[in-house]
Amino acid sequence: MTTTGVTAPKGFSAAGISAGIKASGNRDLALVVNEGPEFAGAAVFTRNKVFAAPVKVSRETAAGGTIKALIVNSGNANACTGAQGYEDAKAMQRLTAEGIGVDPAHVAVCSTGLIGDTLPMDKVEAGIGVVVKQLGDDGAGAADAIRTTDTVAKEAVVKGDGWTVGAMGKGAGMMAPSLATMLVCITTDAKADSATLQAALEQACAMTFNTLDIDGSTSTNDTVVAMASGASGVTPTQAELNAAVHEACAKLAAMMQSDAEGVTKRVAITVQGALDDAQALNAARAIGRDSLVKTAMFGSDPNWGRVLAAVGMADAEMDAENISVTFNGQTVCEQSTGAPGARDVDLSGADIDVVVDLGTGGAGSATVRTTDLSHAYVEINSAYSS
Amino acid sequence: MTTTGVTAPKGFSAAGISAGIKASGNRDLALVVNEGPEFAGAAVFTRNKVFAAPVKVSRETAAGGTIKALIVNSGNANACTGAQGYEDAKAMQRLTAEGIGVDPAHVAVCSTGLIGDTLPMDKVEAGIGVVVKQLGDDGAGAADAIRTTDTVAKEAVVKGDGWTVGAMGKGAGMMAPSLATMLVCITTDAKADSATLQAALEQACAMTFNTLDIDGSTSTNDTVVAMASGASGVTPTQAELNAAVHEACAKLAAMMQSDAEGVTKRVAITVQGALDDAQALNAARAIGRDSLVKTAMFGSDPNWGRVLAAVGMADAEMDAENISVTFNGQTVCEQSTGAPGARDVDLSGADIDVVVDLGTGGAGSATVRTTDLSHAYVEINSAYSS
Repeated sequence: MTTTGVTAPKGFSAAGISAGIKASGNRDLALVVNEGPEFAGAAVFTRNKVFAAPVKVSRETAAGGTIKALIVNSGNANACTGAQGYEDAKAMQRLTAEGIGVDPAHVAVCSTGLIGDTLPMDKVEAGIGVVVKQLGDDGAGAADAIRTTDTVAKEAVVKGDGWTVGAMGKGAGMMAPSLATMLVCITTDAKADSATLQAALEQACAMTFNTLDIDGSTSTNDTVVAMASGASGVTPTQAELNAAVHEACAKLAAMMQSDAEGVTKRVAITVQGALDDAQALNAARAIGRDSLVKTAMFGSDPNWGRVLAAVGMADAEMDAENISVTFNGQTVCEQSTGAPGARDVDLSGADIDVVVDLGTGGAGSATVRTTDLSHAYVEINSAYSS
Repeated sequence: MTTTGVTAPKGFSAAGISAGIKASGNRDLALVVNEGPEFAGAAVFTRNKVFAAPVKVSRETAAGGTIKALIVNSGNANACTGAQGYEDAKAMQRLTAEGIGVDPAHVAVCSTGLIGDTLPMDKVEAGIGVVVKQLGDDGAGAADAIRTTDTVAKEAVVKGDGWTVGAMGKGAGMMAPSLATMLVCITTDAKADSATLQAALEQACAMTFNTLDIDGSTSTNDTVVAMASGASGVTPTQAELNAAVHEACAKLAAMMQSDAEGVTKRVAITVQGALDDAQALNAARAIGRDSLVKTAMFGSDPNWGRVLAAVGMADAEMDAENISVTFNGQTVCEQSTGAPGARDVDLSGADIDVVVDLGTGGAGSATVRTTDLSHAYVEINSAYSS
């Protein structure tokens, strides 16, 4: 039994195979099954008004509170595919349910990949026939099969007192608030009802995936699904479950940031001295999305002026003549003017911490994690679909 | 007498020189003087909360309605420079006023370049002493002296019936709503009072510079100044003046788009079928700022799915299942799904027109002009300051 991912908790089996959806022949179909004895489910989804067919199907599944399995394909997002796309997502749900002998209403569906092409359903159908037979408690290949531009599979395990949370995720670009082109499956053998699991998932996402903002883009397909089997027999408190789910999500988020498309720098932007946390978050996002800030980071250039120019457009109260900035703990700007030695701060390392104080004297603060804007980002995203 | 820029209208002289502010030795100080007989002035400025010292000074000048001269330096933005920066901008104003024999309160000041360093005032002072002696009706070098990363000087002339509008501008990056790292000086020999000129300037900016959005960044220094000498003796109607100022601004905006940092494609994004024009503009901006859309354009990739993903996050009402998209007039998406041949549309040319219908049946529409996101954009902006 693997201890690295979604099958680390008791009561789960998984598998990942190549169904031929990806032209490369790499793994592209994953199945995670909750074997019980309990089947509590929870999920959060993209806030994009343009959302994919599998998101529509999985919203219906999650609304019922019971999720017994999650089927995921990569290589095709089944987004912007109209009525045919919805039929195909429902077919994925039904075929999976038939293969493992459960009610289709208890199966969630995710797809990730190129937007706008309908799924090759002959391959999907044949693949589901194969993957249901490969299910095992080692979960072989499941995390690998959900990758798109991810360079590594992403898994995490968090141990509770007699219970465990496991997770796998994919996400490397199109990161933005309210998730990203990001799929995550979280499993636990804790005893937890759907409402408890949903609460844990929402607080974890708010503090992890929703503050990871790589390029301001938000996917049509973002989905985080959680399933609780109760197989450990242990009922953690809400706080204990929150902490464990948060830790698993934080681990995956860190892996996504490190693996973001074209990343050469990991940048954490903290805004403090805001009137409230929401305004601090607005300001941190404005800085983290600014192309001029991000290209300066790529160039290891302590160009704090671009940070001020970016934050000045944020929807947040600030004292425009009393903003201060530190890079990696060194003060580069005080009272909105340059500090001695500011141009000489060494940002050549892979991690850059930016702290901005808006000077209002308020206690609001927030941190957003992003990356630099590099040549490789341009390369990967200009050559992705064609 | 040149007919290419700010000295094309009667009653203006100008010059541009090298004052040694730029390490390169290129021209970096420009002066434009309204010789009268009238001195109506108007201006629009950045909406950034963090704005440069010269913006503060020029706002005070413009508030009086009389602008007799504009002094501009490049190579240093005099932004985020605190009390010293304001003193320096006031000194530029006073030295210029003394040099040409006018009230300092009637002199506007602009600076553009790196944020966060104080001006080398010895060089600025010596340069002002030189530039006031070089003033001529050929305006030699003025448009050149306001360049930063601009690869070409940008000028425009529009002829009215017996009167003329001239203009020069700089701007190649950090373009965003509410102007850009953009400085523009507009001159006219029309008879127009300050209010008439201000009205003409505001409508022109709204339709030109404010819909040019290269990277979503907004400068601390954006300024457009207009001066009317009345030297033609002709009083155009408000509509006539509006049209001419709009045409001059549109010409400069087109030059800025073509010269945007790292541009390989000029992209026009039109959104229609919105409930109103403001929502259409929100949607067009959301598409125009999306890094994934812009990298796809760089790759000549007709990836309409990214357009839908981007517009789905816009603050605009839409029928998410009835969005249509054309690229260069060819339908690539109908009813939010791919049209036949969508992947084969040829986007290899330098101009890409994107038209998105939000499907609400509303009459709202708007166009935003942007560019692709290229390797050269990353290169220019990662190496700019250090």
